[in-house]
Order: sequence, then C-alpha cells, then structure tokens
Amino acid sequence: MKALVLEEKHKLSLRDFPIETAETLGARDVRIRMHTVGICGSDVHYYTHGAIGPFVVREPMILGHEASGTVIEVGPDVRTLKVGDRVCMEPGIPDPDSRATRLGIYNVDPAVRFWATPPVHGILRPTVVHPELFTFKLPDKVSFAEAAMVEPLAVGVHGATKAAIRPGDVGVVIGAGPIGLVTALSLLAAGCSRLYISDVDEAKLALAASLGPITPVNVRSQDLAETVRKGTDGWGADVVIECSGNPRGASGIFEPLCPGGRVVFIGGQSEPIPYDVGAAMVREARVEHVFRYAHVFPRCIEMLSSGAIDVKPLITRTFGFDESVEAFELAASAPAGEVKMQIEMPA
Amino acid sequence: MKALVLEEKHKLSLRDFPIETAETLGARDVRIRMHTVGICGSDVHYYTHGAIGPFVVREPMILGHEASGTVIEVGPDVRTLKVGDRVCMEPGIPDPDSRATRLGIYNVDPAVRFWATPPVHGILRPTVVHPELFTFKLPDKVSFAEAAMVEPLAVGVHGATKAAIRPGDVGVVIGAGPIGLVTALSLLAAGCSRLYISDVDEAKLALAASLGPITPVNVRSQDLAETVRKGTDGWGADVVIECSGNPRGASGIFEPLCPGGRVVFIGGQSEPIPYDVGAAMVREARVEHVFRYAHVFPRCIEMLSSGAIDVKPLITRTFGFDESVEAFELAASAPAGEVKMQIEMPA
Amino acid sequence: MKALVLEEKHKLSLRDFPIETAETLGARDVRIRMHTVGICGSDVHYYTHGAIGPFVVREPMILGHEASGTVIEVGPDVRTLKVGDRVCMEPGIPDPDSRATRLGIYNVDPAVRFWATPPVHGILRPTVVHPELFTFKLPDKVSFAEAAMVEPLAVGVHGATKAAIRPGDVGVVIGAGPIGLVTALSLLAAGCSRLYISDVDEAKLALAASLGPITPVNVRSQDLAETVRKGTDGWGADVVIECSGNPRGASGIFEPLCPGGRVVFIGGQSEPIPYDVGAAMVREARVEHVFRYAHVFPRCIEMLSSGAIDVKPLITRTFGFDESVEAFELAASAPAGEVKMQIEMPA
Amino acid sequence: MKALVLEEKHKLSLRDFPIETAETLGARDVRIRMHTVGICGSDVHYYTHGAIGPFVVREPMILGHEASGTVIEVGPDVRTLKVGDRVCMEPGIPDPDSRATRLGIYNVDPAVRFWATPPVHGILRPTVVHPELFTFKLPDKVSFAEAAMVEPLAVGVHGATKAAIRPGDVGVVIGAGPIGLVTALSLLAAGCSRLYISDVDEAKLALAASLGPITPVNVRSQDLAETVRKGTDGWGADVVIECSGNPRGASGIFEPLCPGGRVVFIGGQSEPIPYDVGAAMVREARVEHVFRYAHVFPRCIEMLSSGAIDVKPLITRTFGFDESVEAFELAASAPAGEVKMQIEMPA
Repeated sequence: MKALVLEEKHKLSLRDFPIETAETLGARDVRIRMHTVGICGSDVHYYTHGAIGPFVVREPMILGHEASGTVIEVGPDVRTLKVGDRVCMEPGIPDPDSRATRLGIYNVDPAVRFWATPPVHGILRPTVVHPELFTFKLPDKVSFAEAAMVEPLAVGVHGATKAAIRPGDVGVVIGAGPIGLVTALSLLAAGCSRLYISDVDEAKLALAASLGPITPVNVRSQDLAETVRKGTDGWGADVVIECSGNPRGASGIFEPLCPGGRVVFIGGQSEPIPYDVGAAMVREARVEHVFRYAHVFPRCIEMLSSGAIDVKPLITRTFGFDESVEAFELAASAPAGEVKMQIEMPA
Repeated sequence: MKALVLEEKHKLSLRDFPIETAETLGARDVRIRMHTVGICGSDVHYYTHGAIGPFVVREPMILGHEASGTVIEVGPDVRTLKVGDRVCMEPGIPDPDSRATRLGIYNVDPAVRFWATPPVHGILRPTVVHPELFTFKLPDKVSFAEAAMVEPLAVGVHGATKAAIRPGDVGVVIGAGPIGLVTALSLLAAGCSRLYISDVDEAKLALAASLGPITPVNVRSQDLAETVRKGTDGWGADVVIECSGNPRGASGIFEPLCPGGRVVFIGGQSEPIPYDVGAAMVREARVEHVFRYAHVFPRCIEMLSSGAIDVKPLITRTFGFDESVEAFELAASAPAGEVKMQIEMPA
Repeated sequence: MKALVLEEKHKLSLRDFPIETAETLGARDVRIRMHTVGICGSDVHYYTHGAIGPFVVREPMILGHEASGTVIEVGPDVRTLKVGDRVCMEPGIPDPDSRATRLGIYNVDPAVRFWATPPVHGILRPTVVHPELFTFKLPDKVSFAEAAMVEPLAVGVHGATKAAIRPGDVGVVIGAGPIGLVTALSLLAAGCSRLYISDVDEAKLALAASLGPITPVNVRSQDLAETVRKGTDGWGADVVIECSGNPRGASGIFEPLCPGGRVVFIGGQSEPIPYDVGAAMVREARVEHVFRYAHVFPRCIEMLSSGAIDVKPLITRTFGFDESVEAFELAASAPAGEVKMQIEMPA
Repeated sequence: MKALVLEEKHKLSLRDFPIETAETLGARDVRIRMHTVGICGSDVHYYTHGAIGPFVVREPMILGHEASGTVIEVGPDVRTLKVGDRVCMEPGIPDPDSRATRLGIYNVDPAVRFWATPPVHGILRPTVVHPELFTFKLPDKVSFAEAAMVEPLAVGVHGATKAAIRPGDVGVVIGAGPIGLVTALSLLAAGCSRLYISDVDEAKLALAASLGPITPVNVRSQDLAETVRKGTDGWGADVVIECSGNPRGASGIFEPLCPGGRVVFIGGQSEPIPYDVGAAMVREARVEHVFRYAHVFPRCIEMLSSGAIDVKPLITRTFGFDESVEAFELAASAPAGEVKMQIEMPA
C-alpha cells in the first residue's frame, strides 16, 4: 500500500504513507480505489520547483489530482453511488456555506481544498475518501483512462463555456500543450467551425492538426495575427484563448481578435503581463478569466460518452505505478510530442 | 427562360415570366444564374393554400427562396464578389436605415422584403439580381446542393444560438421535419452532448437517429417528458426547441425542461396556444423566439466547409427544373421519409 | 405568547401555539423576536380559500412570511450575527445539497421549505428559529417596517434582474398591486428611464404615478399597447412585466413590446393562458419567468439603505398584533387604495 | 460667421473658415445651427499636443464635438426632424455597410469619421450638416446645456451597460474627472446601490460625494481596495470602472473586485499597462472595454428628460463663443474643481 510522495523539491519516493488509515468515511462520503492517475504540469512543477506561487511544499506530500477509480465503500447517506461504481473525482472541495459556493461559483471560493496543493495530499495512492457530491459515476463507454482526462478537459470546457461560443465562430488557441489541446477540442465541441493553434513545438502542432479543422501556426516562423486575419478576410477571430501561460503568448493577444470578440485567459502567469488597453478598446474586447472549473465534470463525462469529444489521442504514454518516479523524471524533461502521461495503479 | 409560377392556389405553371429583363443591376448588386433551389414548406403552403397568414397570393408569383448559383454580372461598386463566383443568397432584404437593422437585428425589421412572400417573387427562374451584402461566396468544399440548404440550416443555427448552448447540454427537439433536423444538427454542433427528438413519423425518426447521438421518441407510443426525465436522472433537458408548429407539440413544452432551462420556439403557430405559466415559473424557464435568422449565413457556410455540420443526409431527392410541377405535387402529398427535395436549374 | 393561527378556511384565531418551545437552535441558527410582519396576498388567499394550488391547509397553520425582528439567541457556530442585531429573514430554506441549490438557483429547488406554505408554519408569532445564512442584518437607516417589505421587494428586484434592464429602457408593468408597485420601483432603480403601469383601480394607479416617471394606464378606458406605441414613436417598450396574475392582463402581453424586447412573468396564473407565438416571434421576444428570488435580500437592504429604492409610500396601514384578525378581514375585502398592510408584534 | 480653429499645436484662432459653404445637404441630412458646445479633454489635448496617438493635426482643424443646436434646414427624405427642432448630435458617422455597423456595433467600425479628429472638422462653428440618423430631437425638459452633455454622458452610460449592473451592485469608479463623474451617475442610474470613487483632487471628490450615495476615496491618503473590502464585509465590489486613463489608476484594478465581478476600461492608456492575470483569475473577473458608444444617445436623452440622471451639477462654467480661446487656455491649465466647461454659440 504505497503512495508517490514528494519528500521535497526534486525528491520523489514510492513508499508507505500513513494517510489512508486516518481517513474516516463521513455520512455522504465514498471510498474509492484508484485506477488511473494523470500527470499534470502542476504535479511536475511541485516536483521541479517545490512550490507554485504561494503554495510551498513544506512537508512530504502525495502528488496527483487527475483520477478515476472504483467505489469500494459508501457512507450511510450516500444516495447516488454504490460499491462497484466506476467513477472520476473533482479534486477541489469548497466550503459549502461560503458566499461564492452559494452563488454557484464554488471554484472561486478561497477556502477550496484541492488535491496535491499544499497542505492537501494528492491521490497517487491506493485509495481515497471523497464526498459523494464531487464523485461522478462513469457510463460504460468511458474508460478509466478517458475518465482520468476529465479533470484537464474540464478546464478546457469551462474556458469554452466562458468564451460564449456561437455556432460557426472561428477560434484561436495559444499554446498546444495538454491544456491547449483540451481547449481546442472543447472549442470545436462548443460550436467553433475551425481553429488556429499556435506553438513552437512542431510535434504538438502536428498532433493538434490531426484533431479536426485546426490550422497549426508555428510562431517561430509565422505571424499568428497576420495568419488569422488572412484566413478571415481581415476580420479576425471571434475568440482567442490563452493557454500557454507564457508572457510572450499573452502579449499581442488582441491582435488576431475581431471587433466585439472575446478573449479567455486559461494559462496562469507568474508575473503581471503588458496589456494593450487601446487594442482591447478599439475592438471592445471582452476578456474572461478561468480558475479551474465549476459544475463541468458531468458535462465532460456526457461528451466523452456521446462522442462529442474524444480525448484518447491526447494520452500519449501510460506507466505502471511502480514506474511513477521514472514517469515524473521523463515528464520533467519536457519530452517533445508527449501530451498526457498517465499512471495505472495496481489492481 | 422559364420560371415556376404559382398562378393561383393549386395552379403552377412553368412558363416565361417577364420579371428578369426588368431587373436592373444597382451599383452594389450582382446578377446570379441559379443552380439549385430547395423546396420549402412555405412554398408548398402557398401552393396548397394560396396564403400564409396575412400574406395572400393575389397575382401570379414565382416560388422558391432556398438557392445557390453563380455570379454572372457585378455592379460597379461590388468589392467582395466577381463573375464566376459560386454563391448562396439570403432571401430577405431589410431596410438598411430601420431601427431594427441598425441595432443588428434586421430580421425583425417589419420592412423586410423576402423572396416568394407576396408580393415579392421567388427564384425558381434562370437568374436574379441581388445585393452583394446578402450574397455569400462558397468555398470549393461546399456543393451547390449543400449551399441551397444554407437557408433552412440558418434557421436551426439561429435557434441554437438563441438557445445559448453550453458544452454538454442535453437537448430536446420537438418535430423531425426539415427544420427539426437542421435544428438537431445545429444543437449538436453548438455543444449539446446528446438529443431527444420527437415525432410521429417513424421514417423521419429513424433518419434523425442516424445523424448522431440522438434518441428518437415516437410520441404515439412514448411519453416525451418521462423519457427525458428518465434519461437525465430526473433533472430534465437543458434546452427544448419547438420545431413542429403543432399546438400539441408545443403544449407541455416545459415538462421535459430542467430548472433554469431554456425553450426556443422555431415552429410558427397559426393560433394562440395554451401556455402553462406555472410550469415555466417553477423552473424559471427562459423562452426565446426565432424569426428567420440574422448574420448566420457566413457561419453556416463555414460549418459546412469545415465539416462541423453535414446536411447531405437531409437531401432525399433531386428533380430537374422541367419536373418542378411534379416535385411540388409530390411535396404537397407529405411523402413519408422525404426531408428536403431540391430542384436543379438548367445549366 | 400567542400566534395567528389559520385553523381552517375562513377561521383565524389569535391563540397559544406550542411550536416555539419545540424549536431547537442548531449550531448555525439564530432565534429572532419578531417586530413587524407584512400581510401578503398569499396569506390572505390561504385564509379565504384554504389552499393555493397543490398546497392545502389540512392542519392549523400559523400565517405570515414577510418579517423583521431582533436576534435574541445565536447558535455556537454563528459568525455574522449577534444578540441584539436587527434583522430580516428570507422565508424559504432549500436543501443545501440539491443540484439547483449548488448551481446557485436555490429558489427552484423543489425541496424548498417556505414559511406559511403547508405544512410549514409562518411567523405571526413571538419568535422563530432560523438559519444564519437566511437572516440578514439591517443597517441603522432601514426601519423594521421597511425591512418587512424586503420580502415582496425581493420579488420585484429579482424580476428586474431577469429583465436585464439596460440604462434608459422603457418599461411596462401590468398590475398596480403590491407586487406591481415593488416591481415598478425595482425597474426604475434598475435603469428604466420611465414606465407605463396598467390597472383598473384608479387609487392604485394614482399612487403608482406618484412614485416616479410612471404613466398610469387605466385599461378600462385606455388601450395599453396603443398608449405605449404612441409614447415610443411606434417602437414599443423594451420590457413588459406581468404582475397581475390575471389572464386578461397576460393576454396581448407582446403587443406593447419592441423588437428584441423582454417579457417577465411574475404574476402566477391558475390556468394555462393563451399565448401568441406569432406575436412573440416577429419581435424575437425573450420571455423570463420568476419564482420568488435568490440572493436578492442583501441587495434589497443595500438599496433601501442607500435610498436607491423607497418603499415607505407602499405601506398604507399598520395594525397591532391584537388586531390581526381584523387586519386579515380587511385585507380579504380588497379595499381600494390599500397596498401593503403590516402588523406590529408586541415588544 | 467664425469658427474656432486649431491652426497648429498651441495656436487657436477665432476666424472665418470656408467649410460651411462647402457642405451640401444630402437627402437624409439636416443643417443645424449650433447652440452649446462642451469642451472635451480630447479637444484640449489636440490644443496642447497637436495629436492623439496616430491622429495628428496636419492642417488647421475646427475643434469641438459635444454639441446641441437647432435644425434650420432638412433634406427631402428626412422623416423624423423638421426645421425648428432642438437637437443634439452623435459626432461619429460609420460606414453603413461595414460588417461592424451591420452587426450593430458601429462604434468599432474602423471607418468611423468623428468630429474634431483629424482630418475631420469639429463643430465650434455656426452651423453643420449632419445625417438625420445621428441627430436626435430634444424634449422640452432637456436644455441645450444638458443636451451638449449627452456626448460625454453616453460614454458613461455605454460603460454602465457593458458592466451589466444588477440592481443593488456596489461599484467603484477610478477617477473623478468628467468621464468618471458621468460614469458614476450612469452606474447609479443603472442599479448600483452605492459607489466608491477615487481621485487625488479633493474638489472633484467633494463634488462626486454630493451627487448621491458615493464614498470619495483620496488615494493620496487612503487605500482603495482596503476601503472597499472594509465596506463590503471583505467581499469586494461587483464592478470596477477605470476612468482615469492613468496607469497607476489601472494597476491593482482587480484588488477591490469581488469573485465573479466585472471590470470596465473606459479611460484610454497611451502605453501597455501591467496586468495581473492571477488576480483576475482567482476572481474569474470579466473585463470589458469601451470605445465611445453605440445606440446610446436616445437613452441618455430619455434619462435626462425623466430625471433618472441629472448632469447639471457637472457643468461648472459657461463661456461666450468670443471667449473660446480663453476657455481653452483655462481648460489647458487643469483648474481644480472644474468639471465640464461649455461654450455658448452666438444666436
């Protein structure tokens, strides 16, 4: 019964960890045996930097927050789940009585406790206790591997929802990493007729281009705004979504945008970025900002089940749990062409 | 150089008609040689009833308003089109200076002049003069037959836009006729994960079910609201779109709807319908109403071109222009399983 | 320590009632001594009819749900209130874990328990235990009488919010009863430049006209739609709000509406009403429906405190608690010119 | 028949100018005799700098674009105005056929021609020819002086519309100059219960505080975000509107904002500003940008007429036309406590 523990920056162990026996099952909780866990850029960042902004790893912490598994125990008041149900889980639990939660925007409740965000442990471990309300039953058509993609997909779907896509919109996605790619899939599912996606990694751009009517733009050699304007009779794109988290990606974000268009910031930035108010004004741009997601998991599961979105091409490599440390080392090396790596837990 | 003329109720002729020589080309007009014209329910209704509501056929009138063709002449100030361009056309021309038009909602300008709506002639004739601003160039990937479907598709896309679909919504379409089916395609393209569609015609329901994740509901034998509730854990559908134009289809429209859901009326009704305010209130339903479309043609063309929407399965039969009268006779007989019939004009 | 008890239809008693000693204080509850209670049309309807729709008075029930008072005891986990705080209370308590509540639309949660709605008792009694989260502290500027108006005002403010008023909109309110008048005040506060209000009661219309730039329309002698069109250069009103609950008020609701306008149903209807789909379509009307309110009490208190809304002119009569039965008898007689009657509880 | 001509930077003359005789009256134009013209910051900026961004004064140019007057001649197709009508005018004329104009967002049409923006002359001259569609009749209650305030007021009303105020919102306005003050009035009219306004000029803050429930915050001595949080139980303001055009005003713009709140940029910035994406994300802020206004003049006139907004306290000084040069010299000195100065044209 081992867990993948980040002991401190650059030091991972696969070792016994006492957390699970300490977890008691509340009346509306379920206990889940983990099946598949995806590796997220934030997990890797804690490994390589020991911190993300104000969140610093001061004690050994279990990593992982993109997960699917099977219910093995249910609390007495659980109504919607039973032992044996295949599920995926939302990793953040807000204060149910906070003002934000009650308004329906629980993701911006400052009291949210989120897996693998210090001091909260993640789920690269055999089992976890979780509230029924944040645990979602999977239909037969959705595999454990796909279900472990729901967490990153939820970010893209939430961003596409904020973008208020109208059918036939033309979109731009900046950055072709895992979040850029789930965002691209979400925008197409949400009604965009076609997309432009920019990056500097040819392998990721090639993968992106294989996912649908998506034009790859390598910004090492091509000008994104000019390409978009040329492809839209000079009008610009209806929506531009920043998924790179790179200040250079974010600069000039209004240039490919049409009058009355919308911008969404999904990628975080470690420092304030230069922002061209005048360029936003002459277009009367609307700018939205995404912080994780709210109420989106069931929608993602529906879309995976119906075929509206297919995330399987994004899962580029799967490891056994005993290969976890190697998996993180590889992920930390930013290997070309890899999008989502997952770890399968022991049965 | 003949036209299909509705002489009076129940009487169609294929004959010379003097309109075309009378059409002068304005500075921003183009002249188009017609290629394909779809038969719409309204064309058939004028044929069988001689009127639609207040619009009465008092003089011989050319039918047809769903059209594609080729530009054969351009006015001196035309900037976006040239001779030889393949195009489709928006059939309604509003007053450019009206308050509604200037607000961007030109479809609700009472002064709109619309093809094949008395006293305005339709386009089942060799050529027409039309404003550049309502004529849209086709990409190579979009055939003339598909392009002649843009007009009905625009109604569905406009309805899906009004429905403000969020990715993963569950939708209900009432009525599986041509408008119901283009609406179903539009809802899926706009982000619905899956749909229910109701009708009494098994052939149309079977066609609908072949178009994507769509559950057919034959309301002769099944209860629509109960089916939807069962399929949504009792919650209901996010959107319900009325496309039958039938008072029975419209009654009970709130029953399959979830709390906070949206209803869109696309199908017209000849008489006031009973409306259950209480059922709408306990859900705080939002109800939208669609009148044709505005600013939607270019979006439809983009979606046909990118593959986001495929209308080809809806074109169930094609006639030569010399078979036009027979085509209308067949259409008037409401043949089972036929969705969209089109007429190909002589080269 | 008496309560006002509806024993059965037409039979009210002011008598001891055992409920209060049975009310235990939860960890996040407060106990409130009542100060002022408004008489609502629904209270009167239970008195005169013994039922509202499916809600039937089968056991003696205390009336009243529009209330203000003073906190006299707080549970151990209460954080925002203390003994001595002057407060008003939201009368409906939803299931905090329901899907609707979690989406932020707790008013459409079917599990809501609402004061003076069988089998839940109202608050025409000395004290009540209530959750902190639905109890709101009053600023000094807001009197107990004004605070007891927050409940009906919340309906109007919620309706004005649904109407999505843009500054300078012209509005129409159908019905000049208490709900019509709070809605009129809410629309003006929400940005309407001016209003039309219709009724058949001259006294209420005169009161309405005294509240701001409001044109009274007595529909016994004037045509509402024609008056509105004449006053808006033929364009129509941006929003029309139905507050009469009368099928005749609701019929023709689209007639005074402008293209692209919005309708809100606030007044309930006991039967389905005739609904003119065609009139809604040619305007592409948006229709919203209001069911009580959500998240609105703090907003109402802010607006009363800042002077943005003044409800004092609507309080036309105040009774002592020992006059409660007489107050209900008067209210049941539908006295001309009376808007809101209130009962002051013993100190 | 003189005009106020900016010959070049720092050089104004009151002199004959040949423009008027050159202006021919189109079929849907009117000729207006000017009555009152407000001095805008942009007029002053052209005077002191000879340019605003890419717009450079290369030829002598008449200043002024905030105007009211009287119709003295009408073209043959004018339907809504007649000689003698008192009017105010929208200073920007878009291309009626542009894509932006047809979508209803004519203000972001790049082809707009705007008074007193090189090479287009302004209206500090006896008469002007203007399109009927951008000329608005005044009701008797609205004076010429108030009508000449409609142009700046329209900016505030457009900003308040973009802010999507819900009744009872708490707002923050950064900057108490003319645009900050009309924005404050607009926010209150649009439903804000109360406002905070920040500046460093005590006289302007005192004027602001006299206009309604507005708390002045002198950022020389007070922290705006802390003041707002303290006044909102730590939650923050629902909307924050940047009207200072000052990078320091714009920095930290998310700090006083509540989760789910909205920011509007009205004040332009000459350089990119630092933008804190993380602060925007944790609140999921929506940011809107305003470029002048569209469809707002009639709404402003309605609100002035009904009393919903009173701009008279903002008109702090009136000059005769023969004092125009002195008026601009005073305006250029940024006199404390002056808000809007106006010039009355000769009768």
